[in-house]
Amino acid sequence: MPAASSRMTPPQATVSEAPDLRADARLNRGRILEAARTLFATRGLNVPMAAVARHAGVGVATLYRRFPTRESLITTVFADQFAVCAGTIDDALAGPDPWEGFCSVIEKVCAMNVIDRGFTAAFLTEFPDATEFEAARIRAEEGFAVLTQRAKDAGRLRSDFDRMDLSLAFMANSGITAASTDAALAASRRLVAFLLHSFRADLADPTRPLPPPAPLSLYHLPWPTDDLTAAPAPRRDSRT
Amino acid sequence: MPAASSRMTPPQATVSEAPDLRADARLNRGRILEAARTLFATRGLNVPMAAVARHAGVGVATLYRRFPTRESLITTVFADQFAVCAGTIDDALAGPDPWEGFCSVIEKVCAMNVIDRGFTAAFLTEFPDATEFEAARIRAEEGFAVLTQRAKDAGRLRSDFDRMDLSLAFMANSGITAASTDAALAASRRLVAFLLHSFRADLADPTRPLPPPAPLSLYHLPWPTDDLTAAPAPRRDSRT
Repeated sequence: MPAASSRMTPPQATVSEAPDLRADARLNRGRILEAARTLFATRGLNVPMAAVARHAGVGVATLYRRFPTRESLITTVFADQFAVCAGTIDDALAGPDPWEGFCSVIEKVCAMNVIDRGFTAAFLTEFPDATEFEAARIRAEEGFAVLTQRAKDAGRLRSDFDRMDLSLAFMANSGITAASTDAALAASRRLVAFLLHSFRADLADPTRPLPPPAPLSLYHLPWPTDDLTAAPAPRRDSRT
Repeated sequence: MPAASSRMTPPQATVSEAPDLRADARLNRGRILEAARTLFATRGLNVPMAAVARHAGVGVATLYRRFPTRESLITTVFADQFAVCAGTIDDALAGPDPWEGFCSVIEKVCAMNVIDRGFTAAFLTEFPDATEFEAARIRAEEGFAVLTQRAKDAGRLRSDFDRMDLSLAFMANSGITAASTDAALAASRRLVAFLLHSFRADLADPTRPLPPPAPLSLYHLPWPTDDLTAAPAPRRDSRT
């Protein structure tokens, strides 16, 4: 059950259920998390729930018994990464140089998303039912907002940087696809370098103002919900 | 130069099959293309072939009879957009200012991809069997390479811009998700503005060299192939 052996201390909302489960249920839960982690990493968050069940070798009903909502599956899978992200923001806030801290958060989170694909999408998604995850996310956002303001006040970050531009950077980074993780990391580093370059206050060009910030709201899990209807296995089975 | 004509007439590789089809086969083909266009736009190129068949209201066997490979479906769906893209590059090459031309290509292609999601992924994908599409893509790439060199020679584009950075920009743009097409277009415009800002030669900072260009190869259709095992429709078709 290597999936459940959480690397650090993740938010406990769903994880804390595990000890109450029977051995076979724990095994299924571990398989589901492992499959979800693999599929999120290779195919992104929009992988059908039915595919997660299939790769875990469990029935769709079992998947939904363990993780009644897609939210609960996603927040459990990314709990560790989320803790690392929150720690990076705390470190940056404690550091002496807000611009270096600002850059380090974007660099680390973008690199993390290349390795654990889907993480920034999870970070940018609202999970109304996952209250602990939500609270931690809001705290991270507030911490980053403080960091942003300090970097602007220090004259390092351009004044027209908008909080939506963080989402934009994460989204842009999540678009990277490459043949290997190393190639994707290299691409991510270069993209982030271009973006941080363009965020610098000393290079801003007042004669060419940016288009207005995009009204990016948090994701609301716009992923396909028809994956279950797409695999009507019981009905088909009954015909053959 | 076949610039204008290529804009009007899409590559004919697959399209030319249509007149030979019977009326019902043509109807199915139209439905498949419409469904694929819609699903690529909303869910990207990695939508399962089985989902395309389902949304088109045809069997998977019918889908594969019309479009034996995923390549053939993708290249047919994006033939028009591809012609527009090639035309934009031709216009840029014919224009007086290579930097403005360079910017206009990136701006237009990125906007186009927001509306016809999956287009830049198709553009960055190698389709060994779709020879006309391949030839047109290579021609577009060569045209853009000429434009890039002219923009560098004019001292407007930073000298360390690499041809891989075009792929990087397209990938980054394709990561944008928003609640509406308008919001996504606004986000795309802002991202592209940041990127073009960072590509400017006059703002390059020799004291902070970029990380090396990422070795981004063309996509090789890394999309899931398990969607067919999930829906063993050919067998079903032959029985009904």
